[in-house]
Amino acid sequence: MKKIAVIGAEGRMGSQVVRAVNAADDLELVAELDRNDDLTAETLNGAEVAIDFTNPQVSQAHVLACAMAGCDVIVGTSGWSEADTKFVLPALEKTRALIVPNFAISAVLAMRFAAEAARYFESAEVIEMHHPDKLDAPSGTAAHTAQVISEARKEAGLGDSPDATEYDEDGARGAKLHGVHVHAVRARGYMASEEIIFGNAGETLIVRTDTTDRACYMPGVVLAARNIHRLSTGLHIGLDTVMDLPNE
Amino acid sequence: MKKIAVIGAEGRMGSQVVRAVNAADDLELVAELDRNDDLTAETLNGAEVAIDFTNPQVSQAHVLACAMAGCDVIVGTSGWSEADTKFVLPALEKTRALIVPNFAISAVLAMRFAAEAARYFESAEVIEMHHPDKLDAPSGTAAHTAQVISEARKEAGLGDSPDATEYDEDGARGAKLHGVHVHAVRARGYMASEEIIFGNAGETLIVRTDTTDRACYMPGVVLAARNIHRLSTGLHIGLDTVMDLPNE
Amino acid sequence: MKKIAVIGAEGRMGSQVVRAVNAADDLELVAELDRNDDLTAETLNGAEVAIDFTNPQVSQAHVLACAMAGCDVIVGTSGWSEADTKFVLPALEKTRALIVPNFAISAVLAMRFAAEAARYFESAEVIEMHHPDKLDAPSGTAAHTAQVISEARKEAGLGDSPDATEYDEDGARGAKLHGVHVHAVRARGYMASEEIIFGNAGETLIVRTDTTDRACYMPGVVLAARNIHRLSTGLHIGLDTVMDLPNE
Amino acid sequence: MKKIAVIGAEGRMGSQVVRAVNAADDLELVAELDRNDDLTAETLNGAEVAIDFTNPQVSQAHVLACAMAGCDVIVGTSGWSEADTKFVLPALEKTRALIVPNFAISAVLAMRFAAEAARYFESAEVIEMHHPDKLDAPSGTAAHTAQVISEARKEAGLGDSPDATEYDEDGARGAKLHGVHVHAVRARGYMASEEIIFGNAGETLIVRTDTTDRACYMPGVVLAARNIHRLSTGLHIGLDTVMDLPNE
Repeated sequence: MKKIAVIGAEGRMGSQVVRAVNAADDLELVAELDRNDDLTAETLNGAEVAIDFTNPQVSQAHVLACAMAGCDVIVGTSGWSEADTKFVLPALEKTRALIVPNFAISAVLAMRFAAEAARYFESAEVIEMHHPDKLDAPSGTAAHTAQVISEARKEAGLGDSPDATEYDEDGARGAKLHGVHVHAVRARGYMASEEIIFGNAGETLIVRTDTTDRACYMPGVVLAARNIHRLSTGLHIGLDTVMDLPNE
Repeated sequence: MKKIAVIGAEGRMGSQVVRAVNAADDLELVAELDRNDDLTAETLNGAEVAIDFTNPQVSQAHVLACAMAGCDVIVGTSGWSEADTKFVLPALEKTRALIVPNFAISAVLAMRFAAEAARYFESAEVIEMHHPDKLDAPSGTAAHTAQVISEARKEAGLGDSPDATEYDEDGARGAKLHGVHVHAVRARGYMASEEIIFGNAGETLIVRTDTTDRACYMPGVVLAARNIHRLSTGLHIGLDTVMDLPNE
Repeated sequence: MKKIAVIGAEGRMGSQVVRAVNAADDLELVAELDRNDDLTAETLNGAEVAIDFTNPQVSQAHVLACAMAGCDVIVGTSGWSEADTKFVLPALEKTRALIVPNFAISAVLAMRFAAEAARYFESAEVIEMHHPDKLDAPSGTAAHTAQVISEARKEAGLGDSPDATEYDEDGARGAKLHGVHVHAVRARGYMASEEIIFGNAGETLIVRTDTTDRACYMPGVVLAARNIHRLSTGLHIGLDTVMDLPNE
Repeated sequence: MKKIAVIGAEGRMGSQVVRAVNAADDLELVAELDRNDDLTAETLNGAEVAIDFTNPQVSQAHVLACAMAGCDVIVGTSGWSEADTKFVLPALEKTRALIVPNFAISAVLAMRFAAEAARYFESAEVIEMHHPDKLDAPSGTAAHTAQVISEARKEAGLGDSPDATEYDEDGARGAKLHGVHVHAVRARGYMASEEIIFGNAGETLIVRTDTTDRACYMPGVVLAARNIHRLSTGLHIGLDTVMDLPNE
């Protein structure tokens, strides 16, 4: 049984993580901590892995505290800057920190498939759909997908997708990120969806993910908790680092 | 047997129309005309209906010529201005001209369904996908769909769809036409597709059309040729005017 | 303010209905009843409309009790037999009972669009996707959609969709209901979805609904509560009876 | 310039291959052969690679003839039996034969992504859509996809997808191949499409391919012609063997 601490255990995500850890046969919940708790070797209570779902303002401090306690830590956040990263790095000589922007396995695989497919198609575009309360557009995942597609196309000697558009006064062609067009839909009824479109003459390939409930993040959280010890010490980014995917 | 003339009979669309008319049991092809032919009662050869697939610059003259010959005329074009319309109207006292921006039955029905559904959903957006050689974005069909949705929402007392977006520096939210967001994808592998998205809490309704071959326009052309005589004399717009759809 | 009673108020659906009624400006909740409560004019407490989310075994008795109390009643159930219907009908001389198999507005509209589109396409098939705990296949909604399509095709003089299949040892072509092929997918991640496919040479039209949360039923429940008094007295079936849809 | 022969050069696919080879800067067409031509070192005219689009009855003989002439050969067919394979194998000591059931790059990638994703999801099903003139159901590609998914699930210790279905009198659940449900849609408007559905609680991942024109096969044909020399001598199956995909 691997010993697990949950930081932010009373939050929306944290409370689901508590249940998911309790439901996993090979994980043992040894600490539930929230904003009024100190974060020390004592309160971490022998945890081998801490799972942090708090917020970007405090997560660096949490990573340092875990490192001091000799505990690996998984942080669910999309909000770290490069400065944040540099700040924590020296403390991670003997332990691991894994930053995960998106725990949905479908989203991680979609991005990977986008990277693999990009070199084989003349055209590529990204559409993301989210609930209408989201403040920013496009989503971080869609922007990252565009980057990944762009890099794969460049490596294969491909330029931008063909586009004869001359008249587009109202901006219907959307954002162009890293040379890839990205469209953001905001509609009630969606939580988070993404559709990646690849096209050649006479064929299209679509990779699409729909997430409809936060429950979708739990398999990724459990997977990360189980496998983080396989990583080298230091800082790692992305759930794919702990999945057994073929080498690129 | 209804007698039919095809104007622009050697063109890409016209040549398909010739075949479609020949294949229809109840239609008889009596004239195939192209750019070197005069357009007179004589050359129209007794046609009851002329089908014109030429180009917006000459189609008004063709409509007038057909009217003078006492022949109903169907024009496939998305390019008439209001001035064009006013120009031909006085000549249509005894015959009919039917202007059809889109002969695809799936596209006509999609727009109709959009009008019916719009009042029942909190959110509505439109995505259109076309081949990358298209010069304008969004497509005329998508812009018209946005207008139809907007009108139905207003009639039902609904304002714009909810949208909390504050940060969208790159324009990922696309065009906003008549208060409805419209997105244009350009990718090899598509001819013309449209997806209309409606959303309420916990549910989405999608109406999607994909056209992949010009053959898709022929059932609409034949339908129009069969039914145009049911219309009142004068000018009419849209294939829906000759379909037996429930009254709105 | 219209006075509303909820029957089965402590159940999964009933408790959501209680919240939805409380949230509607023009509805007033005057009674919350559950299995230990009698159903009389007194306990209904002046309700003009009762909303029943209990189970098929008791709903007929509930309809009778509401009728005796002079109260219109809306029943959410897909389970009434013809005998049930005949049993309650004589009691509904002065009040209305509305039986609703599916309160999702997207599903009601999808079926309506299917009926309208069916006559214009050579091919039509239905796919439904549900969670893997569902006991029956296909869903009642998909079976009803097939029936509606079949009737519209017959009316238009169309036979079955073309199908040259000669070898299908394993049954991949799915069920054939009323001459229309119906496919049932069972996968974790879905609540209830339906995709209706129409095809002509060179074009397809897709109508798709995805429901991901029981919240999606509430707009339909509120709509029914608001509009049931417009119906004639007696028994009515389907949410579409209280929606302002164009006449067929 | 690599020297290419096309066998079956007058056929539907062969004539497109002729054009595609002529359009490729690094390929030179040295022979166009059809049913009245002998297949010898002389008629192959120094070709390094022969591309055969004839039919399963003669393709083994063609492979032998190419091998005798010292020429690699690519065969577009889904129709070889194990006996066929054994028959040609001894002749391939010094040359290569590459059998390709599906040249569409989107279809090859979809199958590969299915194999990668399968181990991460509780549920998996396959839907294929084809034109209604197809004789068999499901398609060979869909059956192969089911097999690939099944193998990946087994390797990961997963059994069949969950399925509580008790009542399915009409067979709506479709075919069960290798433990994976496969559904076949036949509708006018499709050439060949496939949708692979993966689901976990709260999320779905869709991989979908649509092919609408035989043109989609040409990039795969050209890719195979360019890269076949990298393979070891002997018999190989599948376009993926000549694509630079990450090792599994």
